[in-house]
Amino acid sequence: MPQDAHKDRDGTTPAVLTDEELRALDAHWRAANYLAAGQIYLMANPLLTEPLTAGHIKPRLLGHWGTSPGLNLVYTHLNRVIKARGLNALAVWGPGHGGPSVLANSWLEGSYTGTYPDVTRDTEGMARLFRQFSFPGGVPSHVAPEVPGSIHEGGELGYSLAHAYGAALDNPDLLVACVIGDGEAETGPLAGSWHANKFLDPVHDGAVLPILHLNGYKIANPTVLARIPEPELDELLRGYGHDPIHVTGDDPVQIHRALAEAFDRALDRIAEFQRTAREERVTERPRWPVIVLRTPKGWTGPAEVDGEPVEGTWRSHQVPLAGVRENPEHLRQLEAWLRSYRPEELFDAEGRPTADVLACVPQGERRLGATPHANGGLLTRELPLPSLDRFAVPVDKPGAGMHEPTRVLGGYVEQVMRDTATRRDFRLVGPDETASNRLGAVFDASGKAWQAQTIQVDEHLDRHGRVMEVLSEHLCQGWLEGYLLTGRHGLFSCYEAFVHIVDSMVNQHVKWLKTSRELAWRAPVPSLNYLLTSHVWRQDHNGFSHQDPGFVDHVLNKSPEAVRVYLPPDANTLLSVTDHVLRTRDYVNVVVAGKQPCFDWLSLDQARAHCARGAGIWEWAGSADGDREPDVVLACAGDVPTQEVLAASGLLRRHLPELAVRVVNVVDMARLMPQGDHPHGMPDSEYDGLFTTDKPVIFAYHGYPWLIHRLAYRRTGHKNLHVRGYREMGTTTTPFDMVVRNDLDRYRLVMDVIDRVPGLGVRAAAVRQRMADVRSRHDAWIREHGTDLPEVAEWTWTG
Amino acid sequence: MPQDAHKDRDGTTPAVLTDEELRALDAHWRAANYLAAGQIYLMANPLLTEPLTAGHIKPRLLGHWGTSPGLNLVYTHLNRVIKARGLNALAVWGPGHGGPSVLANSWLEGSYTGTYPDVTRDTEGMARLFRQFSFPGGVPSHVAPEVPGSIHEGGELGYSLAHAYGAALDNPDLLVACVIGDGEAETGPLAGSWHANKFLDPVHDGAVLPILHLNGYKIANPTVLARIPEPELDELLRGYGHDPIHVTGDDPVQIHRALAEAFDRALDRIAEFQRTAREERVTERPRWPVIVLRTPKGWTGPAEVDGEPVEGTWRSHQVPLAGVRENPEHLRQLEAWLRSYRPEELFDAEGRPTADVLACVPQGERRLGATPHANGGLLTRELPLPSLDRFAVPVDKPGAGMHEPTRVLGGYVEQVMRDTATRRDFRLVGPDETASNRLGAVFDASGKAWQAQTIQVDEHLDRHGRVMEVLSEHLCQGWLEGYLLTGRHGLFSCYEAFVHIVDSMVNQHVKWLKTSRELAWRAPVPSLNYLLTSHVWRQDHNGFSHQDPGFVDHVLNKSPEAVRVYLPPDANTLLSVTDHVLRTRDYVNVVVAGKQPCFDWLSLDQARAHCARGAGIWEWAGSADGDREPDVVLACAGDVPTQEVLAASGLLRRHLPELAVRVVNVVDMARLMPQGDHPHGMPDSEYDGLFTTDKPVIFAYHGYPWLIHRLAYRRTGHKNLHVRGYREMGTTTTPFDMVVRNDLDRYRLVMDVIDRVPGLGVRAAAVRQRMADVRSRHDAWIREHGTDLPEVAEWTWTG
Repeated sequence: MPQDAHKDRDGTTPAVLTDEELRALDAHWRAANYLAAGQIYLMANPLLTEPLTAGHIKPRLLGHWGTSPGLNLVYTHLNRVIKARGLNALAVWGPGHGGPSVLANSWLEGSYTGTYPDVTRDTEGMARLFRQFSFPGGVPSHVAPEVPGSIHEGGELGYSLAHAYGAALDNPDLLVACVIGDGEAETGPLAGSWHANKFLDPVHDGAVLPILHLNGYKIANPTVLARIPEPELDELLRGYGHDPIHVTGDDPVQIHRALAEAFDRALDRIAEFQRTAREERVTERPRWPVIVLRTPKGWTGPAEVDGEPVEGTWRSHQVPLAGVRENPEHLRQLEAWLRSYRPEELFDAEGRPTADVLACVPQGERRLGATPHANGGLLTRELPLPSLDRFAVPVDKPGAGMHEPTRVLGGYVEQVMRDTATRRDFRLVGPDETASNRLGAVFDASGKAWQAQTIQVDEHLDRHGRVMEVLSEHLCQGWLEGYLLTGRHGLFSCYEAFVHIVDSMVNQHVKWLKTSRELAWRAPVPSLNYLLTSHVWRQDHNGFSHQDPGFVDHVLNKSPEAVRVYLPPDANTLLSVTDHVLRTRDYVNVVVAGKQPCFDWLSLDQARAHCARGAGIWEWAGSADGDREPDVVLACAGDVPTQEVLAASGLLRRHLPELAVRVVNVVDMARLMPQGDHPHGMPDSEYDGLFTTDKPVIFAYHGYPWLIHRLAYRRTGHKNLHVRGYREMGTTTTPFDMVVRNDLDRYRLVMDVIDRVPGLGVRAAAVRQRMADVRSRHDAWIREHGTDLPEVAEWTWTG
Repeated sequence: MPQDAHKDRDGTTPAVLTDEELRALDAHWRAANYLAAGQIYLMANPLLTEPLTAGHIKPRLLGHWGTSPGLNLVYTHLNRVIKARGLNALAVWGPGHGGPSVLANSWLEGSYTGTYPDVTRDTEGMARLFRQFSFPGGVPSHVAPEVPGSIHEGGELGYSLAHAYGAALDNPDLLVACVIGDGEAETGPLAGSWHANKFLDPVHDGAVLPILHLNGYKIANPTVLARIPEPELDELLRGYGHDPIHVTGDDPVQIHRALAEAFDRALDRIAEFQRTAREERVTERPRWPVIVLRTPKGWTGPAEVDGEPVEGTWRSHQVPLAGVRENPEHLRQLEAWLRSYRPEELFDAEGRPTADVLACVPQGERRLGATPHANGGLLTRELPLPSLDRFAVPVDKPGAGMHEPTRVLGGYVEQVMRDTATRRDFRLVGPDETASNRLGAVFDASGKAWQAQTIQVDEHLDRHGRVMEVLSEHLCQGWLEGYLLTGRHGLFSCYEAFVHIVDSMVNQHVKWLKTSRELAWRAPVPSLNYLLTSHVWRQDHNGFSHQDPGFVDHVLNKSPEAVRVYLPPDANTLLSVTDHVLRTRDYVNVVVAGKQPCFDWLSLDQARAHCARGAGIWEWAGSADGDREPDVVLACAGDVPTQEVLAASGLLRRHLPELAVRVVNVVDMARLMPQGDHPHGMPDSEYDGLFTTDKPVIFAYHGYPWLIHRLAYRRTGHKNLHVRGYREMGTTTTPFDMVVRNDLDRYRLVMDVIDRVPGLGVRAAAVRQRMADVRSRHDAWIREHGTDLPEVAEWTWTG
């Protein structure tokens, strides 16, 4: 470890720290280190008031020590600058598996006790803090939602910087400090997040201060960024648009001085960038500072264990001394390690942190564990949502008109954007697809955030814009998560297939929400709302790689209390669903809708009523009137399946008028689930009323057909359920050919009905043959003309 | 667009191109541009031998023009250097949506006709080439598997560079040219892939030449890398470890000269790096060249359309003239555009490319469309797999011993690694988890690939290693895909939860395989094999964020002919399954297995027989002997559920000995699917024989319980099927508490049996109460002691 801790200085070192300040900072750091190690090991004897014995040691040693001393150091120094400068700060701990560290610091500053009064700031509370860590029924080992001050778990690596930027957006007075581990820095999402600084508005947004912590190792390997020459690393960081400030070493005194100086320099620069942008209207993109902190992994822990080097190596990643209960030498080493922090100087006889330890700690909501930004629901204001009447399309009779649903929605989103122009608490994010997804009207209310170069031909780029477009689904998702968890609102518009890119991120967000919902002190935050369009059935340009409807399946595997899925079949239902999801809290809402011209089936009032029920009979679309039991149910979910079902219903009405057909449309997929399995699950009585218990149900579904079985397998009528959907039969072709290839087309649905309704007789067989003939004709026609059959292209619902 | 095309030169410009060469290169480029545009627009009149009319135009105008001229330029110049230097080259086209371009070039060089003889290299073939593009029944719009020379689709952006590196590994004579679009460069996975150069061995691996194509725009926005100052971009690329060579401009003559010079310089440097590493044993990490090509988007296309600038802007992304069939002015512009390439100079009267056009084209397998590396199955050799006997654990009776299955597997993988030391056609990839996943034995046969700095404390780092560890699942997946598609073998070991990070990548890979399998000319490639461990039930350290078994659900949504899922319950079954999957071709195989100590249930012979069947009755584990019909079936899949089912079976045997219990274990999940839905789906007769048609089946499953219903819903006995599995009830806790929290524990399973077997009477009710009491006792005990009940911790199968 090189000792040159003062690299990259631009002058002489100002004596920023007095000896007293230094001593107090070190005391705080030592206290946090002591408490972090204590959580990993101790069940009892928290202050080491007696000699350590195996009986004081936890039966299962869990936790991550390696990253903890570095996190403790940053927390300590953040305390100093927050207090000295009166900062409004939030910290994102990329190495969130270093739970012991953040817990230790929030206990020291009192925010932990403020949140959990039974974990008092004294010996008894310290014992609880230790015991509960990674203990069944206690608290998890990571910086989970249970941890005050956190918006980032850090178990799945890669998203810290994106979260930090999301938190900083539209929070002009907020400093977001973001510790990035050098392991995390190897992930793609983190590597792509550095460019977020091209989207941060120094006028309306706060600042992000990345702290790249090079402790040199991952679980079992050195890290790339710690093992490239420092000049190369500097080029990389400058290439990302940052100005690096290095702090390197393993001597605490030197590091305290260097880190204090680095923070002061970084914060001075940030303040100056913000001042010139805000007061002098300077528009040059700032070269924001980044602190590169190079300290040993597992610093201050055991140097060697069993003859192997541990401090400063990957061996300190988790529990450096693993055999403490069985191995007296390990026990001895642990005691020596813990006592090396001199706990008797750090805590008084009642276990309370001493004045020295607390000297750097800020007060009240300035404390990192008490900032309301990390409990964003406290700051949430209801969105000013406009009346839908202004945006709804007129529907005198079903199917008479056509609209592009997302384009209609664009007008509504434009108004939301306009009505939040001053409040600045709503953002639209997407990977370069806002216009492609036909939401372009929004640009009349806000441009696209952009701080890089602009040229004359550009459109809608805006230094102060609230539409966020970058070709990275990860960054879009990370920004939005950070924005929502700090209490604001948003919508993510995405091509349906490529939202799988963030499958794992949404997993983590749902896990966060599930846990938060169980914590009374966490105020509900606005939901994460997806608008998935350019969907599987309409990828005429792009073909197979762009065809995947499986995100719905993925999301419906997650905690039911936190997930909702909607498939509005036309423009007005899309309006109604979107209006609803923007009002909700603590959910992940997935809305799948079309951007291509689509028949308008329901008036706004009908749409509202239908969406409120989530599933219902469309009497006008079937041939079974109110009093008559249907012979067959044609069910549909999604815009394209709905059109095919209606066309099939029309064909049946014409060719087999004696057949009583009921059409059921499902908007809210969770309604199909049993009551009790999901809050929206419908009672069996309602399900049976819609779908019958004994009649064939032909269900045309937008996605993978077996999802419907997975949702409905417990229903009485399940054995009569036959589902058509997407079966990976995709390519670049026409919309109708897509449904034919997947057996979802109207003709196939009519054949399915005839195959399943008993006793239809010979005329039905002839109709079935006729349908098969049209399908053959389609095959020949499309290969010849490259277009759909005229009767399909010109089809309209004739009621 | 600045005109300084000769930036970054290190001396005077050598006259690398004669005027004749330049003219020939330009002719090839113009021909490719003509053919690319022709594919987007023309149904007939391919050589413009008559005036263009609306009747010649396709009814649906699809395709991506914007990127095509740039790809054509690179293809043209690659031809030159391949021919001049006798290179063995493969190209990865990151902007793979530029399908017309790569199709055009392979048609010009004759590799397209070689692959598809009916698309001849003459007027008739050109007409077919045009017509088939994005035409129903024709070819997709992207660089799909149908395109000769391709291993990368490029519809979902982000993976080109990782694929390129994967192809280069262990191909010392191969140059992989990789065009990276500036849109793609914004994605996280691509941003993280630049560091792959720290893992490329200049001795045993080939070279990757990235060509960053800055055409300035995505679908509707400028790109970040095109809009940061060039010095900042240079810092970024140097920070990535590259040495940039710039080619900038919009004058073809100048660009041809500059690009030829840039390729020569880059290839000279690459050759020198390889020579010094191979001949002089230089170990310094090379600063590999990168070409930065800055040319206008949609270059040579319409400058303006309807008064709006198009060439050089995002408006040229797809089809620059959209109204050609209806708008005579658009038609006139299209004709002028197409004629601007002077097709009469490029093709003879029969439509054959002229000698000038073909002057730069290499011969035979040197052609980019004909390299066997892009049809890697041609190069695949069977892996030399060792006999399993040497690695199997002895099992005299079930449950007498315990092993860590992945550690046992580690010995086997070590041997595979050893036996391929010279062949170098097997790689193990993983995100820093090889040791954590207990496969560390492999390091005795190969170290970890690493070209960055090493220090004394490091272990197993090796400039020539074939274990690839980087903390990026995206990079692991991309490397392996590139490696497999070029015909080699591999295994991806990953924490189960975090494999979701590559959900979307595996989607694309399965799509690739599905399509390849339908192409007779594509030789089968080794399967993509996942070993998912550190699974949901054993995340004692990390808790909730690390608990997700949903990848199985995700994969089973994909094309059944290409996906397989295995859950071996112990060490020997893991060996047997792994031995099998390493022999397969063209699949994605998902193997989920434990790394923690696990009872050995089956001997190797039994394991082989059981895995070959994929599901079977474990007679020894139940109480229903051969002749007796069971009263209940206890089914299991996965190591932890198997243990709980066996424990439940033991409890039932003890407490309700009169109950005939059958235990069924499932290894191959697809066997549960109906025959016809998956190649492994079992006939109903076999299913009924295992599970009965009328007895209660309590199924303990490793993952989300509804997956079993989704697979088995059509079986006769489905209504009797009751599944327990993971329900997102996770945290940091003990292994047994995890199963209790999710109602998968032995006591709950016994209660389930009692609840579902009719007529068991009062004693069973007492047993049920006893089970409930143990569960309550567990709750109290664990909160007190932090460990599992002694009777659970000490449980063994007693037969």
